Amino acid sequence: MNIVVQKYGGSSVSDAERMKNVAKKIQSKVLKGFKVLAVVSAMGDTTNRLIKLANEIVQRPEPRELDMLLTTGEQISASLLAMVLNEMGINARSVNAFQLKIITTSDFTEAQIKNVNREYIYQSLEKYDVLVVTGFQGITEEGDLTTLGRGGSDTSAVALAAYLKAPCEIYSNFPGIYTVDPKLYPQAKKLKYVTHDEMLEMAALGAKVLHPRSVEIAKKYNVTIYCASSFSDEEGSYVVSAYENYLEEPTVTGLSADDNQIQVTILNLPTDFLLVNKVFEVAAENNLNIDMISMINDHDKVNVSFSIVESGLENVDKVFNGFLKNVDGTKINYKNGLVKISIVGVGMRKARGVASRFFKAMENIPITLVTTSEIKISCLVPTEYKNRAVNILAKEFNL
Amino acid sequence: MNIVVQKYGGSSVSDAERMKNVAKKIQSKVLKGFKVLAVVSAMGDTTNRLIKLANEIVQRPEPRELDMLLTTGEQISASLLAMVLNEMGINARSVNAFQLKIITTSDFTEAQIKNVNREYIYQSLEKYDVLVVTGFQGITEEGDLTTLGRGGSDTSAVALAAYLKAPCEIYSNFPGIYTVDPKLYPQAKKLKYVTHDEMLEMAALGAKVLHPRSVEIAKKYNVTIYCASSFSDEEGSYVVSAYENYLEEPTVTGLSADDNQIQVTILNLPTDFLLVNKVFEVAAENNLNIDMISMINDHDKVNVSFSIVESGLENVDKVFNGFLKNVDGTKINYKNGLVKISIVGVGMRKARGVASRFFKAMENIPITLVTTSEIKISCLVPTEYKNRAVNILAKEFNL
Repeated sequence: MNIVVQKYGGSSVSDAERMKNVAKKIQSKVLKGFKVLAVVSAMGDTTNRLIKLANEIVQRPEPRELDMLLTTGEQISASLLAMVLNEMGINARSVNAFQLKIITTSDFTEAQIKNVNREYIYQSLEKYDVLVVTGFQGITEEGDLTTLGRGGSDTSAVALAAYLKAPCEIYSNFPGIYTVDPKLYPQAKKLKYVTHDEMLEMAALGAKVLHPRSVEIAKKYNVTIYCASSFSDEEGSYVVSAYENYLEEPTVTGLSADDNQIQVTILNLPTDFLLVNKVFEVAAENNLNIDMISMINDHDKVNVSFSIVESGLENVDKVFNGFLKNVDGTKINYKNGLVKISIVGVGMRKARGVASRFFKAMENIPITLVTTSEIKISCLVPTEYKNRAVNILAKEFNL
Repeated sequence: MNIVVQKYGGSSVSDAERMKNVAKKIQSKVLKGFKVLAVVSAMGDTTNRLIKLANEIVQRPEPRELDMLLTTGEQISASLLAMVLNEMGINARSVNAFQLKIITTSDFTEAQIKNVNREYIYQSLEKYDVLVVTGFQGITEEGDLTTLGRGGSDTSAVALAAYLKAPCEIYSNFPGIYTVDPKLYPQAKKLKYVTHDEMLEMAALGAKVLHPRSVEIAKKYNVTIYCASSFSDEEGSYVVSAYENYLEEPTVTGLSADDNQIQVTILNLPTDFLLVNKVFEVAAENNLNIDMISMINDHDKVNVSFSIVESGLENVDKVFNGFLKNVDGTKINYKNGLVKISIVGVGMRKARGVASRFFKAMENIPITLVTTSEIKISCLVPTEYKNRAVNILAKEFNL
């Protein structure tokens, strides 16, 4: 049995016309002899509307009941898509988390998939060419409905592909994965191949196309994901475990730019790692999302600098000033209006001189923080230099 | 364990305010020491909106998929009501057809309940004071979702009450069951008791408050149903199996008036019952809803007269003229603009002279058709006599 798992996002099934378009894509796979598991999200902004409905009715919706509510969104889109397929003469049926027995942990609103009833799928695919699967949801061992959190339908699709050892195709309104966001750099190239590791590092590029969590599962179970547009037949991008099976690996695969960064620099902290640790504990307790961290230990003083995203400067100031005011000689600085520019590529592991090329290219741009990993270099620059930095780096690394 | 089954219709849970009101009703039962199974319908006109959505997307929605779609409506209202109850500090949870294992036949869109997992209910009620149950739905033995057809939530509630041998309370926007529709006869009295048989005969009175199908189940399993308003604490009406446990039975319990009746009279049919039968077969094939039937066999000719509801005169004419044009000497007449007036009462079985009182009261009103059952007398009269007939009969039988 030749099985393929496909996933269609909310915008791909947001109305009758788009649903028919999706049905045609599924049909073309069926005509090629495939059995299709079509995982769908809720139509358009249904999930947000349901959350709003709950918040209008109660102050703090109970998570178990919220999941009971939210899972209806995918059941609606799945049943409608099955109707469309049936009308086209395709032998299809919709199935929900109960029917597939997608067993998850009981962490309501962010459950993790533990198992899937493969036998049910194989038996159903004997009778039907297409199973339209409700994405984003599962059930606990006790039979309570759960949801998988943001990007949950991607996770459903990749998990099903992993269990069935089937290829996974994820369709959205993005025609693939680009070296740079085309809105930022219109000459950006579409990548034919990109690795799981690169996708995980390129959160900003990837998150729109693929939720990082689904990429983690894909990496763990070695699932190749094909990402393409639901609205055209344009060739998309493959997310693979390694380039070796495909072609010479490029040194730098992609570039991303993340706005709205705040840089916090704490100077002259005593060399007391409990105290340094406390900085990050305080941040976590206050739900500050810390990203880049750089720490330099100079003699008996530690200087720490880190970036924070999605938080107001005022809030950040309140958190750290309160905590540091009793530490003698310590100085704290904030900068906002920064953008994080990163280049990513698994080829950087082997290639030499990437960092030097990076800094040479950026020589006229004021960089306020740098961090690196094996396959990534990131820096913070003032937002007014964003476009210049993107263009310089995209040209330097031929993106 | 003191269990009560309550049912709240779509208009009772149509918005946040009404849902909170329902929650208070449930709370007052819990405070009295009851465990409550609260069966809910979909909010407001959700079911109709979902049907419309399906019809916009496909010409003829596949019934199995339509049920998959429609069952989401009750899951939404059940989860929201459970949230409201939880916020009020009541230990409640929503449960759907999968969780309760409400097993039905696989007649999609009009399935019949076959079984319910009582053990699950008892176990859940050990932990929770309230189970908010999705009405109108079940699952097949194979795990496909089904719906129970019109009035399905009433059916769910009565069936659960029957399985649990618990009392059943049905709340709607009607404060109870009246001798006559108060819109027609404002002096109408609210009945404290009415029997299942009377409810079944008084379709027009009862259907708004209780779906006939649920009354059939209640009659079969001897379930007493309490019908009252979800919006007030006004005492409602009890639907019981017989009056003997309660009080002296009234002769006539209620009066109903059904508009839009067409009377078809076929004269001089040959005495050939295959031919007479054919009349009704043809009607059924053309989806004509035949109600009253009167047939008089005079020598070698049969005269048949019957009423048809919810159909245009033109359509009726087309059906019968086509079929009768080859039967010599047969004459067909139509009358429209008629109303069916009925009086109902199980006491009529014993009481004498009810028919005579009926006809005497109606002596100045032109009656065009009469049929009777053991507990009912119905007649057709021109619509312009409707109010007069209602008033005369209501006074005559003290309704």
